[in-house]
Amino acid sequence: MATKKLAKWTTSLDSSLLPNSVQTAARRSLYNYIGCTIAGSNHTAAQKAHRGLEPFFGPATSSLLGYKGTSRTDAQHAALLNGIASHVHDYDDTHLATIIHATGPVASAVLAYAEYKGSVSGQDVLLALTAGIEASCKLGLAVWPAHYDIGWHITSSTGSVGAAVGVGRLLHLTETQMAHAIGLAAVQVVGLREMFGSDTKSFHPGRAAQSGLLAAIMASNGYTSSPRALEAKRGWANVVAGGGTPKLDQFISELGQKWEIEDNAFKPFPCGIVCHPVIDACIQLHAELGGEGRRIEDIIKVETRVHPLVIELTSKRTPKDGLEGKFSVFHGGAVGLLYGKAGPAQYADEVVTDAAVIAVRDKIDATSDAKLAANETYVTIHFTDGAKIEKHIVHAVGSLELPMTDAQLTEKFVDQSALVLGKESAQKASEIAWKIGEASNVADVLRRL
Amino acid sequence: MATKKLAKWTTSLDSSLLPNSVQTAARRSLYNYIGCTIAGSNHTAAQKAHRGLEPFFGPATSSLLGYKGTSRTDAQHAALLNGIASHVHDYDDTHLATIIHATGPVASAVLAYAEYKGSVSGQDVLLALTAGIEASCKLGLAVWPAHYDIGWHITSSTGSVGAAVGVGRLLHLTETQMAHAIGLAAVQVVGLREMFGSDTKSFHPGRAAQSGLLAAIMASNGYTSSPRALEAKRGWANVVAGGGTPKLDQFISELGQKWEIEDNAFKPFPCGIVCHPVIDACIQLHAELGGEGRRIEDIIKVETRVHPLVIELTSKRTPKDGLEGKFSVFHGGAVGLLYGKAGPAQYADEVVTDAAVIAVRDKIDATSDAKLAANETYVTIHFTDGAKIEKHIVHAVGSLELPMTDAQLTEKFVDQSALVLGKESAQKASEIAWKIGEASNVADVLRRL
Repeated sequence: MATKKLAKWTTSLDSSLLPNSVQTAARRSLYNYIGCTIAGSNHTAAQKAHRGLEPFFGPATSSLLGYKGTSRTDAQHAALLNGIASHVHDYDDTHLATIIHATGPVASAVLAYAEYKGSVSGQDVLLALTAGIEASCKLGLAVWPAHYDIGWHITSSTGSVGAAVGVGRLLHLTETQMAHAIGLAAVQVVGLREMFGSDTKSFHPGRAAQSGLLAAIMASNGYTSSPRALEAKRGWANVVAGGGTPKLDQFISELGQKWEIEDNAFKPFPCGIVCHPVIDACIQLHAELGGEGRRIEDIIKVETRVHPLVIELTSKRTPKDGLEGKFSVFHGGAVGLLYGKAGPAQYADEVVTDAAVIAVRDKIDATSDAKLAANETYVTIHFTDGAKIEKHIVHAVGSLELPMTDAQLTEKFVDQSALVLGKESAQKASEIAWKIGEASNVADVLRRL
Repeated sequence: MATKKLAKWTTSLDSSLLPNSVQTAARRSLYNYIGCTIAGSNHTAAQKAHRGLEPFFGPATSSLLGYKGTSRTDAQHAALLNGIASHVHDYDDTHLATIIHATGPVASAVLAYAEYKGSVSGQDVLLALTAGIEASCKLGLAVWPAHYDIGWHITSSTGSVGAAVGVGRLLHLTETQMAHAIGLAAVQVVGLREMFGSDTKSFHPGRAAQSGLLAAIMASNGYTSSPRALEAKRGWANVVAGGGTPKLDQFISELGQKWEIEDNAFKPFPCGIVCHPVIDACIQLHAELGGEGRRIEDIIKVETRVHPLVIELTSKRTPKDGLEGKFSVFHGGAVGLLYGKAGPAQYADEVVTDAAVIAVRDKIDATSDAKLAANETYVTIHFTDGAKIEKHIVHAVGSLELPMTDAQLTEKFVDQSALVLGKESAQKASEIAWKIGEASNVADVLRRL
């Protein structure tokens, strides 16, 4: 009954049923998504996809966020291309229990369709987004962890269903049609972990968005699938379970009781989450250095004690470009200390190879300490005069215990989108994006972005 | 190395390397595909998909075979819609070792792209089709049977790679680009068996065609994937193996030595293959009745001895419409005896419920005999005067041992496409379709169809 239950819950959901905390989470998720997508729009992967597909574009109804040149296309291509851009810097959100990047597939489809349709309110978009994210995450939980372990990219392998649910809301699908849309999306299983490190990783959420959109459109035209698409012996969950035992009933029955979107976290820094505590510490220490009148040049050594995974995943001593910099806790610490920031600008190739950055980087050491929590670290700065400053990070910023504030999300949005739009336009875009939930017609907002 | 080997083999393949038997098989596969696709174009599933997606159509470069109204669309939608139509009557080809319906996904993508590109010869189309079919079938063999058993619709779950290879040939991808195209296609795994019986079954080969086309286009624009997409620990084969042990190396190494397209069989009758021996026998008996001056009315009883699967799968005694008729060996035998034919026209709702057909159907019995081969049967007709005629079918027509002749394929093509085009246009289309391999520009041929 999982398919029917999901269809019933998602079609009967109403804005009045969303707790304030859920509405806030949806608003923040959409806002963060827009910043990431604008920032990703001029990445080479997004550009290559755009160039290759342009000859096939249909009527230009839907915005490509951040794109210069052809900035609108048909809804299906907009879903695909925005989805790629949203994920290409690995800077999007994370539903921590499943490591699903939840917003990309759903929002890319929902916004593209909302603009195509016209006269869709911001409130309806947030509702559709919430329904889609709950659907994706519940499916992810039902097959976690075996599904991910065997090699599915869980963001996209669950994302097509989330996107179908989201668009299905905007289409006002009946419960039966929604079940067909879920089925049509469930047969399009996108994303393999083997692709991590290639352009295709970012293709995954884009294609999931497009697949879900297609599913909802076809279902709204009477195309049928199975009403047991998710739970049948040869349906989605059993086929993609990766040898695990799917727990569909358990998680589907928690819809509306436990809201997954509330556990959607945002990355403060565009690199692997494990080195975030050190970066957080170094940014705080940057401010304290200034306060105490200490100079970077007077540092002899920076000692860090870190969770073992930090050493395992991010111990590149001499990163050669921005991509390698993301796998170097030393680079992250160095820019934190030097600039008090570790945004996309601090991961540019020329920053990673800058002599001043390298000088600080080379002074940083890391020692593994299995007693630390994954989001904890101790950082000690030693100065030439024998003095030292110590910083203990209990929970890094961006963790569930210490979520990014709206102000921090705004800084992240502006910093990354400024690299595409320039600072002034980035600030304007940020203001617009915060208010999207209040819009009477989301299409107007998207065109102003 | 399977991905690289497949990329190397498919990019270096040349028409001069194709044995005559392979060229003939490709020509027959494409011809049969065109007839099935024309016939499927006015099925309600194809019509619903067309109607729903029309608002998103891009530049009209590629033909929708058989479609009235908007008969051309962009290449991506043409691949999807023709792919749906090709499979919707379950009357397409079958690679018997894997039960992959091999031509649908590959040809739908290849023809759509060939027409978009223009100036592609029939010979190049047949070469691209062959490369794609070999790719799909070798992948299918590598994961058979566990992949199918767990619930993947193997036609589409391997078809996206076949389609990418086929279009990759037309794009003259380099070996490296072809590997990327294979990877981009491999992450789009389409099709669950749970959908059998719903519209979504036919969506599978259509979406596989479209996914492979997209993959090849993106790879040609420099979009990257993994060069180990198929064989990596978290690559395609291991993730979709369904608990089995993939045998990629074994089958990929046989490329060009054992040609899978030669084992591609064609269905003479639009129903489950298990009841084909009885239908074959009854059609032959129809001719013999006439020859001996015997009348249908003088039949008391028709006894058939059949393989147990016939009873298990097709023993509907009182089918109520055309779809149920496909699961009734008694209906198939009845129309064979009455009309000497069992084409789509004989599976129309009004034929299945026709009193004359029912009268014959009710005289037919079936007895299970485990000693018979799956494509074997004994049929005995008993007459009112005590006489009887017996027919032993050793290998039913359409089996690998007794393939359909070109004349039989022609009859199948004309019979089914006449239901859409009318008889005269169907005959013309058949003549054109047989000659597609000789065309200097396939686009001209497709527009005449």
